[in-house]
Amino acid sequence: MLTGHYWKPEIDRSAFRNFSYGLYIVTSRAEDRLNGQVVNTIIQVTSEPPRIAVIINKRNFTHELIVKSKVFSASVLKESAPMTFFGPFGFKSGREFDKISNVSFKEGVTGCPLIIEHALSVLEAEVINEIDLGTHTVFIGDVVSSEVLDEGNPLTYQYYHQVLKGKSSPNAPTYEAKR
Amino acid sequence: MLTGHYWKPEIDRSAFRNFSYGLYIVTSRAEDRLNGQVVNTIIQVTSEPPRIAVIINKRNFTHELIVKSKVFSASVLKESAPMTFFGPFGFKSGREFDKISNVSFKEGVTGCPLIIEHALSVLEAEVINEIDLGTHTVFIGDVVSSEVLDEGNPLTYQYYHQVLKGKSSPNAPTYEAKR
Repeated sequence: MLTGHYWKPEIDRSAFRNFSYGLYIVTSRAEDRLNGQVVNTIIQVTSEPPRIAVIINKRNFTHELIVKSKVFSASVLKESAPMTFFGPFGFKSGREFDKISNVSFKEGVTGCPLIIEHALSVLEAEVINEIDLGTHTVFIGDVVSSEVLDEGNPLTYQYYHQVLKGKSSPNAPTYEAKR
Repeated sequence: MLTGHYWKPEIDRSAFRNFSYGLYIVTSRAEDRLNGQVVNTIIQVTSEPPRIAVIINKRNFTHELIVKSKVFSASVLKESAPMTFFGPFGFKSGREFDKISNVSFKEGVTGCPLIIEHALSVLEAEVINEIDLGTHTVFIGDVVSSEVLDEGNPLTYQYYHQVLKGKSSPNAPTYEAKR
């Protein structure tokens, strides 16, 4: 681990704003506790075997569930998904509010609730690696099931910000604090 | 590490096609050897400190350079970037072809060539963690410099496929082999 190798770095955080992301709901389940949350940071990391990574803030309840159960699901939201649907997944905590029972889901092979409402496709993964990055963990998972639910455009983070006028969660890896 | 925990998974690879990505040029430098390549898999992983991850195929020359030098740069391509500009970064190997000397770049604090042509912003990072995923490596880096170069829309992977009719590289994590 090298750190602080370069003296007085010049970092303009606006430079990160142009990164492109989608918008997804990630769920997990540990025994009888279910939860889900919105994330913009899901990425496919290998094709053979199909593996995906998701980055989750340690403060989130979903993080706690994934650490316990080592499984998670991901739903790719449609561009037409209304904020009233996915908003509660982003700005309410599953510790105080049962997010899952208000939406359509089915149980996956991992036991995770698969959110199928307003989703183009849904996947489940089994965690094979967890990378601790301080505030966040990168969970890397082998995809164990995946299904296409509908056709259409995915909701992008850019569309969420520019058209829907959505805000970033302070728990997002891409959050920029007011300075 | 759990593997093969679930019996006979049903995996539809089309389910991954709806993930959203941008398009970037990643460069590195090891001593006097410079190279760069197109990637769609760059992601911000934490906000404090600002850290980014990039996923690179082990077959790529840029992978070899990052492993040696532990530094890389990333340029966010503009939507208007022509295929004739970034195409050679995706489909030619830096082992046989000097990609860098044909384009405008400046040297960063890490020594990496920063591609500033057709780019909205450029960043440099110092690798703090490497995760071996078989065919690919996830490099996680502390951002040590970043700069905004221009305003406008970033080039997305969707735009590259749908409007520019671009193809995926067989070395991409998101590549789907014909079946």
